[in-house]
Amino acid sequence: MDAIQYAEANKERFLEELLDLLRIPSVSADSKFKGDVRQAAEFVKAKFEEAGVDSAELVETNGHPIVYAEKILDPKLPTVLVYGHYDVQPADPYELWDSPPFEPVIKDERIYARGACDDKGQMYMHIKAFEALVKSNELACNAKFMIEGEEEVGSDALEDFVKNNHEKLKADVILISDTAIISNEHPSITVGLRGLSYVEVEVTGPNKDLHSGVYGGAVANPINILCDMISKLQDENGRITIPGFYDKVEELTQAERDEMAKAPFDLDEYKKELDVADVKGEAGFSTRERTGIRPTLDVNGIWGGYIGEGAKTVLPSKAYAKISMRLVPHQVSEEITELFQKHFEALAPKSVKVEVRPHHGGEPAVISTDSPAYQAASKAFEKAWGKTPIPTREGGSIPIVALFQQELKLDPILMGFGLDSDAIHSPNESYGLFNFYKGIETISHFYRFFSESDS
Amino acid sequence: MDAIQYAEANKERFLEELLDLLRIPSVSADSKFKGDVRQAAEFVKAKFEEAGVDSAELVETNGHPIVYAEKILDPKLPTVLVYGHYDVQPADPYELWDSPPFEPVIKDERIYARGACDDKGQMYMHIKAFEALVKSNELACNAKFMIEGEEEVGSDALEDFVKNNHEKLKADVILISDTAIISNEHPSITVGLRGLSYVEVEVTGPNKDLHSGVYGGAVANPINILCDMISKLQDENGRITIPGFYDKVEELTQAERDEMAKAPFDLDEYKKELDVADVKGEAGFSTRERTGIRPTLDVNGIWGGYIGEGAKTVLPSKAYAKISMRLVPHQVSEEITELFQKHFEALAPKSVKVEVRPHHGGEPAVISTDSPAYQAASKAFEKAWGKTPIPTREGGSIPIVALFQQELKLDPILMGFGLDSDAIHSPNESYGLFNFYKGIETISHFYRFFSESDS
Repeated sequence: MDAIQYAEANKERFLEELLDLLRIPSVSADSKFKGDVRQAAEFVKAKFEEAGVDSAELVETNGHPIVYAEKILDPKLPTVLVYGHYDVQPADPYELWDSPPFEPVIKDERIYARGACDDKGQMYMHIKAFEALVKSNELACNAKFMIEGEEEVGSDALEDFVKNNHEKLKADVILISDTAIISNEHPSITVGLRGLSYVEVEVTGPNKDLHSGVYGGAVANPINILCDMISKLQDENGRITIPGFYDKVEELTQAERDEMAKAPFDLDEYKKELDVADVKGEAGFSTRERTGIRPTLDVNGIWGGYIGEGAKTVLPSKAYAKISMRLVPHQVSEEITELFQKHFEALAPKSVKVEVRPHHGGEPAVISTDSPAYQAASKAFEKAWGKTPIPTREGGSIPIVALFQQELKLDPILMGFGLDSDAIHSPNESYGLFNFYKGIETISHFYRFFSESDS
Repeated sequence: MDAIQYAEANKERFLEELLDLLRIPSVSADSKFKGDVRQAAEFVKAKFEEAGVDSAELVETNGHPIVYAEKILDPKLPTVLVYGHYDVQPADPYELWDSPPFEPVIKDERIYARGACDDKGQMYMHIKAFEALVKSNELACNAKFMIEGEEEVGSDALEDFVKNNHEKLKADVILISDTAIISNEHPSITVGLRGLSYVEVEVTGPNKDLHSGVYGGAVANPINILCDMISKLQDENGRITIPGFYDKVEELTQAERDEMAKAPFDLDEYKKELDVADVKGEAGFSTRERTGIRPTLDVNGIWGGYIGEGAKTVLPSKAYAKISMRLVPHQVSEEITELFQKHFEALAPKSVKVEVRPHHGGEPAVISTDSPAYQAASKAFEKAWGKTPIPTREGGSIPIVALFQQELKLDPILMGFGLDSDAIHSPNESYGLFNFYKGIETISHFYRFFSESDS
């Protein structure tokens, strides 16, 4: 039987295996899950071995291990390098989950669990597609796999691994499934990603918590000050006020914007889905443009003072926030982080002290639609979905995409199968069974078309 | 031996008893300490009985019990009613304490513990002064005691108790030790207190946490919005922007302000003590005025999004803040809370939903310096400290002071012995042994002078 039939025949097992992987709380951001992260890596390595690779290994790093596996049929054949990650975002707030994040359940044809889509579900499709090709003797090219455990915290170890292993990672394409399609009716391929700058800020007022009655009104309150400073980071038009922030931003032509506008999008549906009376963003741009081609700034977390039950009249010593900026071509993460730091420190009144601690960053990326690899991906979608995928730009960041372009001189193919409604990074993350199985099918087709292409 | 000698002879025991009381974590704001709060009430009741009252009782309420005790020598004699509270502020952040908040230690002649000054230490001086007067047969008037367990959460139960017990609480003066003196070199009596409005606000953006990459820049981020809204509550001159907020504010005459300015105050010392490069407050007013005669607004707590270790790129569904306003004569807490609510809701953009939940409030108070009671207090300080106390206005709030004025038609005497540096409501709260013992002495003198006065 062929790969498609093999996948069909084994679909129940494929799903059970994914559920087992989802039960491992591999949260890379929180050190108390370190052991679970390693367990997830071991699980992935074992599945590669069962699937029929020549070899699979755990590459040790200063952080979480990288799983590397490969099957080389013939060095002269084209080589597909697959990237994915087995780590997941923190699951809190736990109380907002309808079922425990690490006890996957199937409901209405969907898998509910942290990582169901991002990226365990999408990464696992590749292991299973590869298995189907091998077991049905349809694999017609070499395959290499690089599955990391630090994507959600900046991929520091992977960056070193890629820089130091150009030969080992030599390939003709990098295939990644960590993005979304417009909808199951409108498959799409992501050809643009935003970069990221992420900082943590600390504002210190008095050297200790004070009684707001005794000192309130005379001593700077770091929470009020932090709110003022954050408020000043954007103007009333939603423009970011950091000097130089927009200097390198790629401005699209009207023709390009018109092309983007053709992608189906229903604003009312969008608002209804999120239960918001109105959207909010940079003046002069559509919702799709705001998330696709414009840089943004969001506070991802804020805390300070008394946040327990009841009332406490404290004037706190410190207030904190985690702030991230999404970047577009050709902004540079490190430059933007520096501009932010300079500006934020300049915003601080004399009555407080400010510290800006940069977290990880990542560079934006744009991918060509002319390459044989993109064409193979497009054909694979046509074959599996009966529709030509629409090239789109996505708001999210996969920092290592730019790294692959720089270091390995390869354009990644972002063949993602998620939906925006999968709620990745949110409570009740889910992934459609349809997308899981259809993804395996599409990936199998990609291998065939790509092997046939004269890349 | 007389009362002063008795107190001197028993000072070690007095201190040990206070330390026992401080070991009981009677945090009224947090329901998980409910049992401890009751235990503290029982402790206080028992100490009144040992001190020689006619009767002592726990008055049950919907919240924490009130301890009531009295000794009536002769209904024709003047009566002193003492008010205090045995509950304390929450102790967190625990990690900032040099020693556990509920394991009192004596260091450099100071008692370190939550409640050491506010108000267990100051309240307990009254039980011991009373004991000294009784045991030395020097009590020359009637004494009533009303010690509550909800001062830190709004005194709801006490308000009902006072309203329903005018006869029982009939007295000629209310004596309260829950305030501070300028310094041990400059004793003072508080003749003004600020009122309080306290609200909790909730800003809701999308109906679930979102991926800031996928939605950031297009959907309102409730944290950014909350920061904008908080920032707009005050202008660049530190004036509160709520329409009508200042309408009823009592403006002092230049003469009154000049009188206030005579109280010793060292701004450099103040800044050094708090380790701030500059103070910050309403333009056109001194630091003392900002905390004494001007209304203020402080964020006491803020939280939202991801506040754990590492980085999470979430666009949260909700953000929260606890906000309090200090009020001055003749602002009315309930009116100010309503003005805040109206204004805050008006500040919200269409892209979010806002909820304002009022907490407890309290009214400001001004106390006359002409009364026989004030004169007796002034003489008591002169006798014990060798200096005439300076009448001052304090920034804090004791909401029930205004209640006593309204309901019992009595001017309270705020005979406090704390220092601003006692760090009440902060980690490492402390109370000087000197102040504890000197307070007992001063209170004893007060009883004598007050009994002699023709009140």
